[in-house]
Amino acid sequence: MKIKIGIYGYGNLGRGIESAIRQNSDMELVAVFTRRDPATLKINTPDVAVCAADTVKDFIGKIDVMILCGGSATDLPTQTPQLASMFNVVDSFDTHAKIPEHFANVDAIAKKESKIAMISVGWDPGMFSLNRLYAGAILPEGKDYTFWGKGVSQGHSDAVRRIEGVLDARQYTIPVDEALDAVRSGVCPELTTRDKHIRECFVVAAENADKALIEKQIKEMPNYFADYNTIVHFITEEEMKRDHSGIPHGGFVIRTGKTGLNSQHNHIIEYSLKLDSNPEFTASVIVAFARAAYRMNKNGESGCKTVFDVPPALLSVKPYEELIKELL
Amino acid sequence: MKIKIGIYGYGNLGRGIESAIRQNSDMELVAVFTRRDPATLKINTPDVAVCAADTVKDFIGKIDVMILCGGSATDLPTQTPQLASMFNVVDSFDTHAKIPEHFANVDAIAKKESKIAMISVGWDPGMFSLNRLYAGAILPEGKDYTFWGKGVSQGHSDAVRRIEGVLDARQYTIPVDEALDAVRSGVCPELTTRDKHIRECFVVAAENADKALIEKQIKEMPNYFADYNTIVHFITEEEMKRDHSGIPHGGFVIRTGKTGLNSQHNHIIEYSLKLDSNPEFTASVIVAFARAAYRMNKNGESGCKTVFDVPPALLSVKPYEELIKELL
Repeated sequence: MKIKIGIYGYGNLGRGIESAIRQNSDMELVAVFTRRDPATLKINTPDVAVCAADTVKDFIGKIDVMILCGGSATDLPTQTPQLASMFNVVDSFDTHAKIPEHFANVDAIAKKESKIAMISVGWDPGMFSLNRLYAGAILPEGKDYTFWGKGVSQGHSDAVRRIEGVLDARQYTIPVDEALDAVRSGVCPELTTRDKHIRECFVVAAENADKALIEKQIKEMPNYFADYNTIVHFITEEEMKRDHSGIPHGGFVIRTGKTGLNSQHNHIIEYSLKLDSNPEFTASVIVAFARAAYRMNKNGESGCKTVFDVPPALLSVKPYEELIKELL
Repeated sequence: MKIKIGIYGYGNLGRGIESAIRQNSDMELVAVFTRRDPATLKINTPDVAVCAADTVKDFIGKIDVMILCGGSATDLPTQTPQLASMFNVVDSFDTHAKIPEHFANVDAIAKKESKIAMISVGWDPGMFSLNRLYAGAILPEGKDYTFWGKGVSQGHSDAVRRIEGVLDARQYTIPVDEALDAVRSGVCPELTTRDKHIRECFVVAAENADKALIEKQIKEMPNYFADYNTIVHFITEEEMKRDHSGIPHGGFVIRTGKTGLNSQHNHIIEYSLKLDSNPEFTASVIVAFARAAYRMNKNGESGCKTVFDVPPALLSVKPYEELIKELL
């Protein structure tokens, strides 16, 4: 009996989930749900139903875990609670500041309906969060650092695209090597936003656009760019297509800490990711946690859960005895 | 109410546990148990009892978690089951091949007595195992690599010390940079034992010893050195004391894997440790898992557990709401 998965929303993340399911022999994709006209949607898996989002309730009992692939700004705050009333669900809600509120909303419904609703799954929040937790629990006297990149920030790319005269834009977040080295040296540096990351923008401008003005508007944009050293390159549409069509990302979680009667010993714990495809890797994490959500629900658990609640063994397709023998 | 900890065995690891407990405000050390004459043992914490190992049963009900600090070869196979009949216990059993057998022995007794017995806790087995599991669950199409070092191998140092004419010895395991680079490139290289690690020995020889013979005996020693490129340096007792008194260690767990409909995207997950003191870091990991063992037992769980069974939130002294808010 395979774990029956539904995909709710079919953008980059949804396609990543579809692809990841193929790599997991204990899972099968049952249906993809979309708010677009289902007839217009071509998916990559033959013989899988594409259904209108508002028919989802017909699949109660036919889907073990629904994976929500909408955005955190407007989709997930309503979709996750709504769908958790019908299915075990996993989402990748990533508005860090609003996680407690989202948790509370989802928890009430999931508990009432005896479902598992796992929120904020991916790599940050997700695997990076786990590594912050593990490292902090092991080295209580220490300091955490998270660096992102090199990778494409969708939010920052969108912000540049909204500037008048910009036809297309791609923004890379780049960790500063000197800052990484300082952290790894164990000196526990105090780092400002500007010290940690550079922002590099590739911009396709309209023909008669004022490039100097665009560059100024980017560099002075509050929240997005003003606190960073920002580099702006103007390129052609062809160059954009040729050199910047990927969605790579990654980053580093580093904790340095001290042990010993006189705090005389230094330790460095580092976790890093280097990803060719941000959405596909996020999807791969989500699919493993969907397995755990299914198993936790089978074990009688319910309510809102995060990566912090999941016994790691539940993530693996391998039997426990094999894990003990081969990986421990 | 603090978690009451006992330490069973007071060598490097036991002292590390004692020191780690001071960094965790929710724990207190109740007693240290030793097979030596307790009167001869000076510990670093005032007002804590030092007791003979055979009085341990007098502490039933007075200690929440007993941390076993004996060796894997002869101590833990008997001590862990024995003490799991009286206390929640944590050990660092690290004979990988015998873990399934140790698990079965411990599980039976711990279940019978409704205790949690957490085995093989530390960094390998332990944190490295966890990272192998997480990475493998996320990237099913991929390959794992574990490198150790640079660090002191106690077992290999001991093996060199047993050679006639050797007064003292220290062996460092060193990962080969070219092998690490090849793994990180994502090409999934097949690496032999010799490709992955170098063994470097620092030896103090007796005055009239045949150094050439000692070097030959080291380099040809089966299991320990014959399969490696080994470097031997002869040094003085003073140099040994001055330059090689620390017990550093560390290593790398790397998984590279592919995603995408045509496996066209590469991903690299890397976890690394750089430790000034192997026993103190191991102790720090164990103390965090002792907290989890205590909480799992309070929740009504029992039996043998490993790091794979522990919901990460149970490791942290911080309340769940704070974890969600600050670390997720």
